Amino acid sequence: MKGRIITIGDEILIGQVVDTNSAWLGAEFSQLGIDNAGIWTIRDTRAAIHEALNQVESDVDLVVMTGGLGPTKDDLTKKALAEWFESDWKTDEGVMNRVKEHFVERGVPVPEASLEQAQVPSVCTVLANTRGSAPGMWFEKNGTIFISMPGVPYEMKGIFTDVAKSLIRDRLKDQNIAHRTIMTQGVGESTLMQMLIEWEHEVAEAGLKLAYLPSAGSVRLRVSGMENGNQELHSKISSMVDRALPILGDFVYGFDEEQLEQVIGRLLKEQGLTLSTAESCTGGYISHMITSISGSSEYFKGSVTAYANETKVNILGVDSSALDEHGAVSKQVAIQMAEGVRQALNTDFAVSTTGVAGPSGGSADKPVGTVWIGIAGSNGSYAQKFRMGKLRESNIRKSAMQALQILRKEIISTSKLSAQDSLYLK
Amino acid sequence: MKGRIITIGDEILIGQVVDTNSAWLGAEFSQLGIDNAGIWTIRDTRAAIHEALNQVESDVDLVVMTGGLGPTKDDLTKKALAEWFESDWKTDEGVMNRVKEHFVERGVPVPEASLEQAQVPSVCTVLANTRGSAPGMWFEKNGTIFISMPGVPYEMKGIFTDVAKSLIRDRLKDQNIAHRTIMTQGVGESTLMQMLIEWEHEVAEAGLKLAYLPSAGSVRLRVSGMENGNQELHSKISSMVDRALPILGDFVYGFDEEQLEQVIGRLLKEQGLTLSTAESCTGGYISHMITSISGSSEYFKGSVTAYANETKVNILGVDSSALDEHGAVSKQVAIQMAEGVRQALNTDFAVSTTGVAGPSGGSADKPVGTVWIGIAGSNGSYAQKFRMGKLRESNIRKSAMQALQILRKEIISTSKLSAQDSLYLK
Repeated sequence: MKGRIITIGDEILIGQVVDTNSAWLGAEFSQLGIDNAGIWTIRDTRAAIHEALNQVESDVDLVVMTGGLGPTKDDLTKKALAEWFESDWKTDEGVMNRVKEHFVERGVPVPEASLEQAQVPSVCTVLANTRGSAPGMWFEKNGTIFISMPGVPYEMKGIFTDVAKSLIRDRLKDQNIAHRTIMTQGVGESTLMQMLIEWEHEVAEAGLKLAYLPSAGSVRLRVSGMENGNQELHSKISSMVDRALPILGDFVYGFDEEQLEQVIGRLLKEQGLTLSTAESCTGGYISHMITSISGSSEYFKGSVTAYANETKVNILGVDSSALDEHGAVSKQVAIQMAEGVRQALNTDFAVSTTGVAGPSGGSADKPVGTVWIGIAGSNGSYAQKFRMGKLRESNIRKSAMQALQILRKEIISTSKLSAQDSLYLK
Repeated sequence: MKGRIITIGDEILIGQVVDTNSAWLGAEFSQLGIDNAGIWTIRDTRAAIHEALNQVESDVDLVVMTGGLGPTKDDLTKKALAEWFESDWKTDEGVMNRVKEHFVERGVPVPEASLEQAQVPSVCTVLANTRGSAPGMWFEKNGTIFISMPGVPYEMKGIFTDVAKSLIRDRLKDQNIAHRTIMTQGVGESTLMQMLIEWEHEVAEAGLKLAYLPSAGSVRLRVSGMENGNQELHSKISSMVDRALPILGDFVYGFDEEQLEQVIGRLLKEQGLTLSTAESCTGGYISHMITSISGSSEYFKGSVTAYANETKVNILGVDSSALDEHGAVSKQVAIQMAEGVRQALNTDFAVSTTGVAGPSGGSADKPVGTVWIGIAGSNGSYAQKFRMGKLRESNIRKSAMQALQILRKEIISTSKLSAQDSLYLK
């Protein structure tokens, strides 16, 4: 099956909103084995919507549209769809009831505009939206399926997962697409490519594809293949991935979009161990990454963002003399921060960061991007120095990723797990 | 001038990467007054690139492409461009030197693949990339400009800002497009729409456009207009925006994409005041938001993520009896957390959060989404209760935004600034 994603909304075209829906839908397409022929972002006008529908109509089997269904005046999608499908209107009782419930729950009178959500083109099948007022809609024309959903990501994902996905699956032919992604941290794309020259040849010879997918602080290696109804594909990809692991060594932290903070979580949970963090240059971002995982309260006791030197001394017990002698961005201070928070919060492990995030604050001795990462655990404590880039946002992200990677290795080295086993621990 | 953005890369189509480049470029288009006719994401294949170029060639004046120029094998864009423009190849010495410098700086040997970056189609003008090895390229054909840049956001933004933008500006005719965006927090889209019914009519009568742009924890109201060489436009939009402010009151925290954490920063800096935060359910996210602003060390002393009750007691001095009697998610604990961190870190203001982020941990009494936000300052301390949604990620974001909004009001109420003046403080 061939599909396209159409995102409707001027706010995306003028850059006031980043379109995350299309990436999410792209991943769903990929999982369903739907070949994504492209993503279009178009204007919220009747003409643009009709033009796009005319173009894709004969080109693909499935068109998924998001956006342009909210209660406000800039949303014309539903009308444009009714016109294009030459449809009358009907009132959907299910939508009407959900809209009323939605506002009653919140103790708010139902706005008139929200009641209009229950008006839908009569040729469509309504896809229930249990998380909001704008319904999803399913149309068919000359064998092509058209799905329209609201642009609010939480609502769109709900409609797709709860209703649309199984309807699409019913239409899918027997086909098989598979990926496996190796998650790495601490090594750049060009260097990886040199490490993997020979392995890349093997991948190509096996009829598989390899993609390097870099993002701040991490490069993912995706091996993929497509076959019709052949169960061998998964094992072929898996054994190819296994052959890359000895080459990549410690840079690998997981597979298939598992995040470093999830890996840390399962390693700690498995062993009943606890963690705290002390952050200067990362400013709470490591703590945020860890607590973004549901259930992190089982192993994460807390964090101290010690931005001022005073906070480093008073809360973390860093020596004033160490700050005077070596400066805040130093091995000594990184170690004392980690040891200090480990003791204060009474945890098994602690990780710390102190560095120059930039763009200001650098010196010849400690240029912007200099970061010390400290670790304290049952095996003692140490710190490592890194040189990140010049951009504040990416420095924070890269430093946090590097800190979690060092922490991951430390947790494994003090455990009975082998590095290899730790990757497959669930 | 009419433009299009083309993003090249399978990783976006299968959802492994979110395309943030297009939003950034869309905002740049908007600022330059370029009418964005659409954003396309296409495959990294010769056929897809040629097909897209054929389609846009006669349709727009400017095509900006990103992606597909890295050193790895899945990048075919440069070859596809050379073919489409029927061009030979040349070696660009500038690129060659930068590639060599780039690796020498890092003390790493230059990978062969990176040297190939210096090979470019001879019909193009190279747009220097000072932040990486893949060069930007400028082509022209039948009056249409085609710009190709690497997909790494940091590099792409550098090329566009440093080189491409002024070249485009030279080509622009005399035209005038203007926006002003009102940033609000604490009120939903439907409610805003009801508050603004009459004002919306005025906006339309003045020939201006209004868009509601919701995102987690915030709704932006964008008023825009377009005129040719008419200087009146800006003042027309400004006076329309001013008329909305009394209706919106305290919900407004700023204008034109200014973020709440920036507003907090300038309010504190202006008055020489300091801040600390104590976070439970937001897990360090407020601290991260505040420290994402360069120069925040001037007013932000630090934060304690107190995830475990033990941390609340030992580091923040919360009473065990308050925890036993009222639970961690309570008014008493929120207040004690704020007071505790304010005292421990010796700051003028402190803000705290304690709540049930979900998806687990809720009860009939305190369902998922229940959040207490505490404030401590020179005027004493208090806490407010909120009911956020059911989604962890959005709860964290919404709670953090709400906490910063309450903090903003508290800072203003203890200052000599009027609420109105505080919005225009720079």
